[in-house]
Amino acid sequence: MNTLPNNLKQISLFLERLPGIGEKTANRLAFYLLRLPERDLKEFAETIGSLKSKTKLCRVCMNLTEDEICSIDKDTSRDHEIITVVEEVLDLLSFETGNIYKGVYYVLHGKIDPLNHIGPEDIYIQQLLDRVSELTSSRVNGLKKTRIKEIILAMNPDMEGEATAMYIRDRLKEVKKHNGVYFKITRLAYGLPIGASLEYADYMTLQKSIEGRNEY
Amino acid sequence: MNTLPNNLKQISLFLERLPGIGEKTANRLAFYLLRLPERDLKEFAETIGSLKSKTKLCRVCMNLTEDEICSIDKDTSRDHEIITVVEEVLDLLSFETGNIYKGVYYVLHGKIDPLNHIGPEDIYIQQLLDRVSELTSSRVNGLKKTRIKEIILAMNPDMEGEATAMYIRDRLKEVKKHNGVYFKITRLAYGLPIGASLEYADYMTLQKSIEGRNEY
Repeated sequence: MNTLPNNLKQISLFLERLPGIGEKTANRLAFYLLRLPERDLKEFAETIGSLKSKTKLCRVCMNLTEDEICSIDKDTSRDHEIITVVEEVLDLLSFETGNIYKGVYYVLHGKIDPLNHIGPEDIYIQQLLDRVSELTSSRVNGLKKTRIKEIILAMNPDMEGEATAMYIRDRLKEVKKHNGVYFKITRLAYGLPIGASLEYADYMTLQKSIEGRNEY
Repeated sequence: MNTLPNNLKQISLFLERLPGIGEKTANRLAFYLLRLPERDLKEFAETIGSLKSKTKLCRVCMNLTEDEICSIDKDTSRDHEIITVVEEVLDLLSFETGNIYKGVYYVLHGKIDPLNHIGPEDIYIQQLLDRVSELTSSRVNGLKKTRIKEIILAMNPDMEGEATAMYIRDRLKEVKKHNGVYFKITRLAYGLPIGASLEYADYMTLQKSIEGRNEY
């Protein structure tokens, strides 16, 4: 690789650090970049350079945003009484791409993962509980009033996601009890993905799809 | 995707333009970039921004370089009388990675591809012929002297590569004849790749491996 000009080598080495990109792909991408219009490269360079300083966490839901509050929480047409809790912003994007959900979100930025030394205090669980507490402790004419209808726990269907969901469920129940309010706590359905073939389904998924079978 | 902050969306859209990167991967990479140290991002941005203005073609062989002449042509330990002609700089890198070749190169930056309207005049064929002409037309004590021993045509083994190799071979023969000099013109060997299984080899490769069989 000594034959590559320095700047191309630098770019290639940087790209190699990204997930899923090996040396060959990094080289290929670096060469491709060289063929793009100068103007586009400069614009890209500028955005990359200011990426971190310009991106913040939404004050309300920890989603990424350039303002104080993200576009989802600003959107008054959405149902702010239904909150879907996700591990990462990318999970939120999956829901949004499908345009299948009209509530709001809360992003934990991780999951409880003891093997990697990530405990509940390392992700935004306490902030979620504080927010729920606040939304359920207002009083109208002396009566408790909740501004939450439902919290959907949308962690990933793996061991850490499951542990995180269970932990949050138990803590949310405490909040409900403490504030004397009611809201639903739900979890995403498990089962066969659409278009899947039974023949190739793993037995865990099959088991879940039997457990969760619906009348038809 | 309206929910992504503008700067992340810009980066993601840019990455999506690169070969082999779809929307999902682009998003994932953009988020990954956000987690890298500020200093590394700024450095990367700077290199990207100046990429095109800093990268030139080597005066001798059309390889990419930051100087006038690339590091390969500057290397006096190499055999400058053997020239391997490749389509792209990436092909050159493949040879260099293996450290299997000690001659020099010539990069065409493309191949003859009539279906995509790329003719001989659209790639650096004439420049190659001019260089070979120059290297074979010097006179020592009135006698013609060639400074080329061999030209290896290392085009890819596909239809366009084959056409390019044949075209260059014929033009090189003209140069030899015109200058009254001799040098070898060779083509890379075809056959089964190392580690391949006969069972899965395509018949074109098998045919080539039979045609090119060696005494053993």
